[in-house]
Amino acid sequence: MPPRTPPTRFAYLGPEGTFAEAALRSAVASSEGARYPHPSVAAALAAVRSGDADAALVPLENSVEGSVPATMDGLADGEPLVVTREVFLDVAFVLAVRPGTALGDVRSVVSHPHALAQTAGRLADLVPDVVPLPLSSTAVAAAAVAAGEYDAAVCAPIAAERYGLVPLVEDLADTPGAVTRFVLVEPAGALPAPTGNDKTSLVAVVEDRTGALLDVLREFAVRGISLSRIESRPTRDRLWVYSFSLDCEGHVAERRVGEALAALHRVCEDVRFLGSYARADGRENRPVQPGADDAAFTEADAWLAAIRGTA
Amino acid sequence: MPPRTPPTRFAYLGPEGTFAEAALRSAVASSEGARYPHPSVAAALAAVRSGDADAALVPLENSVEGSVPATMDGLADGEPLVVTREVFLDVAFVLAVRPGTALGDVRSVVSHPHALAQTAGRLADLVPDVVPLPLSSTAVAAAAVAAGEYDAAVCAPIAAERYGLVPLVEDLADTPGAVTRFVLVEPAGALPAPTGNDKTSLVAVVEDRTGALLDVLREFAVRGISLSRIESRPTRDRLWVYSFSLDCEGHVAERRVGEALAALHRVCEDVRFLGSYARADGRENRPVQPGADDAAFTEADAWLAAIRGTA
Amino acid sequence: MPPRTPPTRFAYLGPEGTFAEAALRSAVASSEGARYPHPSVAAALAAVRSGDADAALVPLENSVEGSVPATMDGLADGEPLVVTREVFLDVAFVLAVRPGTALGDVRSVVSHPHALAQTAGRLADLVPDVVPLPLSSTAVAAAAVAAGEYDAAVCAPIAAERYGLVPLVEDLADTPGAVTRFVLVEPAGALPAPTGNDKTSLVAVVEDRTGALLDVLREFAVRGISLSRIESRPTRDRLWVYSFSLDCEGHVAERRVGEALAALHRVCEDVRFLGSYARADGRENRPVQPGADDAAFTEADAWLAAIRGTA
Amino acid sequence: MPPRTPPTRFAYLGPEGTFAEAALRSAVASSEGARYPHPSVAAALAAVRSGDADAALVPLENSVEGSVPATMDGLADGEPLVVTREVFLDVAFVLAVRPGTALGDVRSVVSHPHALAQTAGRLADLVPDVVPLPLSSTAVAAAAVAAGEYDAAVCAPIAAERYGLVPLVEDLADTPGAVTRFVLVEPAGALPAPTGNDKTSLVAVVEDRTGALLDVLREFAVRGISLSRIESRPTRDRLWVYSFSLDCEGHVAERRVGEALAALHRVCEDVRFLGSYARADGRENRPVQPGADDAAFTEADAWLAAIRGTA
Repeated sequence: MPPRTPPTRFAYLGPEGTFAEAALRSAVASSEGARYPHPSVAAALAAVRSGDADAALVPLENSVEGSVPATMDGLADGEPLVVTREVFLDVAFVLAVRPGTALGDVRSVVSHPHALAQTAGRLADLVPDVVPLPLSSTAVAAAAVAAGEYDAAVCAPIAAERYGLVPLVEDLADTPGAVTRFVLVEPAGALPAPTGNDKTSLVAVVEDRTGALLDVLREFAVRGISLSRIESRPTRDRLWVYSFSLDCEGHVAERRVGEALAALHRVCEDVRFLGSYARADGRENRPVQPGADDAAFTEADAWLAAIRGTA
Repeated sequence: MPPRTPPTRFAYLGPEGTFAEAALRSAVASSEGARYPHPSVAAALAAVRSGDADAALVPLENSVEGSVPATMDGLADGEPLVVTREVFLDVAFVLAVRPGTALGDVRSVVSHPHALAQTAGRLADLVPDVVPLPLSSTAVAAAAVAAGEYDAAVCAPIAAERYGLVPLVEDLADTPGAVTRFVLVEPAGALPAPTGNDKTSLVAVVEDRTGALLDVLREFAVRGISLSRIESRPTRDRLWVYSFSLDCEGHVAERRVGEALAALHRVCEDVRFLGSYARADGRENRPVQPGADDAAFTEADAWLAAIRGTA
Repeated sequence: MPPRTPPTRFAYLGPEGTFAEAALRSAVASSEGARYPHPSVAAALAAVRSGDADAALVPLENSVEGSVPATMDGLADGEPLVVTREVFLDVAFVLAVRPGTALGDVRSVVSHPHALAQTAGRLADLVPDVVPLPLSSTAVAAAAVAAGEYDAAVCAPIAAERYGLVPLVEDLADTPGAVTRFVLVEPAGALPAPTGNDKTSLVAVVEDRTGALLDVLREFAVRGISLSRIESRPTRDRLWVYSFSLDCEGHVAERRVGEALAALHRVCEDVRFLGSYARADGRENRPVQPGADDAAFTEADAWLAAIRGTA
Repeated sequence: MPPRTPPTRFAYLGPEGTFAEAALRSAVASSEGARYPHPSVAAALAAVRSGDADAALVPLENSVEGSVPATMDGLADGEPLVVTREVFLDVAFVLAVRPGTALGDVRSVVSHPHALAQTAGRLADLVPDVVPLPLSSTAVAAAAVAAGEYDAAVCAPIAAERYGLVPLVEDLADTPGAVTRFVLVEPAGALPAPTGNDKTSLVAVVEDRTGALLDVLREFAVRGISLSRIESRPTRDRLWVYSFSLDCEGHVAERRVGEALAALHRVCEDVRFLGSYARADGRENRPVQPGADDAAFTEADAWLAAIRGTA
């Protein structure tokens, strides 16, 4: 397979000024490609599948809101795509107004419902008499404030900047430290090279019987592989069949990870590989146990060939 | 402990006309108690914690949107509460209008963003020229249509009925068959009696090491207990510590479940019990394995006492 | 149950002068009881079962010859007995002769076949022209030499001493360092008190299916209990049913061990408890893991009672 | 590697007339090779290692006496050998006398101590006044009776036949149905071809820590491989290091077995392969689970290559 060509046309969950755009800017210099906003995660993924975009940056999970079903389902179903990169972005909300607006002037506040939920306490303190109104995105809210339709928007700093607003209050979240994990998604094919500190994502569908999940986890444990995320979801159309969405440490190019995935492929109803990519949360994978690294696998191959008499 | 007193004052995620109210109506006859809408899941749970309500009905997970973080977190943190009942409700959206409005008259459509997301395809077919507008809930949308502010609302049948609207289109969801799982939450204390077909919910917090989740699952597996849901979440404030939200088959009053929970309490950083309650999804738990039922535990106790010489 | 009465009448695998007698002498001062030799392990155990003896000292395993089936089977079948003590004895063979016999005078050598096997190399060097003859025990061999029937016996130092012989050659074993593990066996009933460094022995009979043994071992592993010996044996009379003879760390009076044994009792075809007794091999058990000690179990009981509402 | 050459020179545990010779006769027609008795298991194995014999037939375990340490240790240490065949022989003892001897004439009985132990009850009934005498083998005993030195021998039917004796009493064992499992041992190298109903033997040496054996067994369980025998032995020279002698179902040429052995090689201190050979106990291996057969492994390889982009 030819080496991977870096993507140059990037779809993202728009409109302009969303956290997704901020994440994309942090990940890809503007000189490296063009960015196209899409109205939904599904639309951004469809653009990759159709070839209209080389890659899509979409949110996968948020430390406050949990996983993003549209992304989970969008990756699990349809033409195979793979994650080639993960990007973490601090979710820093600001209360954005037109220049000159003071807190006492704010009679209306708009934002996406999730953003309003994460700032409800602060808003009740700051503007107790205002009932916040939901709009379809934080960026749309910023645009509406810029247009003079409302007085203030809860949005990302990037949205305030893009729409000519100023941050009246920063760090507006009730629970500071929220982080959203975005993933860059590309067509299945050549993968990023291992970096030594990678993650692998997959979805495993298992028949529902006592211990089925335990059997899945054992395939990782016997090969010394740690999981960093797991989530069960009932499959939509099959009674008693569950799917598990998993992130594990390591790259599919590693022997231990490859053997574990092949084992799941053998024993599960279905396994979908969702990519191996550099870990970007600032942490290091656990050290690979002795006996689980590629050298140990290679040495064991030689030993096995010798005892089989096929060396 | 005195027997459980049935709750009579019910908080729910409002406003009136939400799916939560519909779920509550399906679960509790109006003669059995009074119902109070609350503006958020947190508010509904707070009403139970403060004693202003006996119980709260809140959404836990949706087959399309996934789990509801506000409920997950509201149960995992704060004063202990327990689930005493689960209620499943088909998410049937209607396009509700004032009597006399025809499809050709619809120039504006409003709803909660999640409802708009789940009906986007149908709406694009039905009213291709309309850009739907988000409001804070499907019930608020219905009220706004009733007030003449907009032409149509995507809402629950109960909301159309309550606000004097008529369903212009039924079964509006792009993916039919969506179901929301609500839970009735009460203060920790006396539990519902076992019915023979129960579920138990809990949150386990584990130190992050290879195999930690496997160890948690083994405690269930060795005692013949099936899991029906699992979800990992990074804890908000502790690096490398994960929490797992689990549903398992069985009631904590059963020996096998009690011993498994006690084992988790011993080996996990923290375990929060979230209730044992009748299974209500129309399925039967797997048969309890020989050796895992209460009679087997009682018999084993007697055997152990005999060999210990303490019989 | 009344406290355990120390045994005073000891059966052992005779005749006088065997390693079993030496082990019994090392374990029980002569002032503490009377010792009775028996012709076989079965006879010694039968004396305990019939009440003719309070306890029997019999060999369980040897570091060179492996386990002793007569003892294994004698404990696994028949009226229940328990091990109350283990005794390790270095197997030091001497070449015993009548006073005055020189190596060059030795024309015949006798011993038990196992002893001859373990000294075959040395004998071939020392007395290359002699074909050793088997007798029914090392002690019988010593007695026969004392009686003038043969020139030399391979036996225990105690046998040489008892029969008036002198050790012509000491440390006769080809592989030095052999150790035999003897066990003191008493009727089932009150057990030795825990010492903090105990072992527990048992036999578990399991239906033969893939993973059956794994399931047995998991009951120990989930409770943090290490095994120190395991041996599978096909059951004599039931096709496809295996029994496992196990030693684990800990005392049945400990919660973790008691719960593990009760679990095996629930899930196995049969479990026979063979006693808890002080570890005597000079090693310390692994430290009990946090969460596996009795305090953790007691605390978990209280927690469980609270969440069950039965506190 | 060149195909396996059938052995033609067979060593066995002698002398002539032992059960080992009987087993060898049942396994190999006399036209297929020459048979050479050896005085000990060690000597028979040494003959194979030195090239003096092509193969050795030695006893591995007995349903009454348990495993044979000399064989276990002889295979585990020294130059690698492999089992190429297993042979089961019913242990049918006869009371053999010279023609013309009646039961009332028997004043002395001789045999190997193990044989005397297994027939002690019947002998006590048949010849209550006789104290049996041990000799070094059942065959030696038969020869001694033939020579007129004693009146009766407890031996194999083959020994009676070979030494011109007649069976005065047949089926002499106290517990009928005893079976000895012999193994044919050859130099490591080309293996017998898989038959579809094979066993594989090995010795795994593991560091002694809680759960070490569980980890070993998991490598078989995750690949759907059943064990048919397991035995732990302390290693002779290393404190806290155990070795496990195992038989599992399947042939090392099968993917599942090969991968399990390679995994053990990676995670254990040491693994010694002791051969794959046709199962001969009259039983069939458990059916290979879906997902564990070679076709499933091959298919998973192709899948893995595709997701790795190396197909």
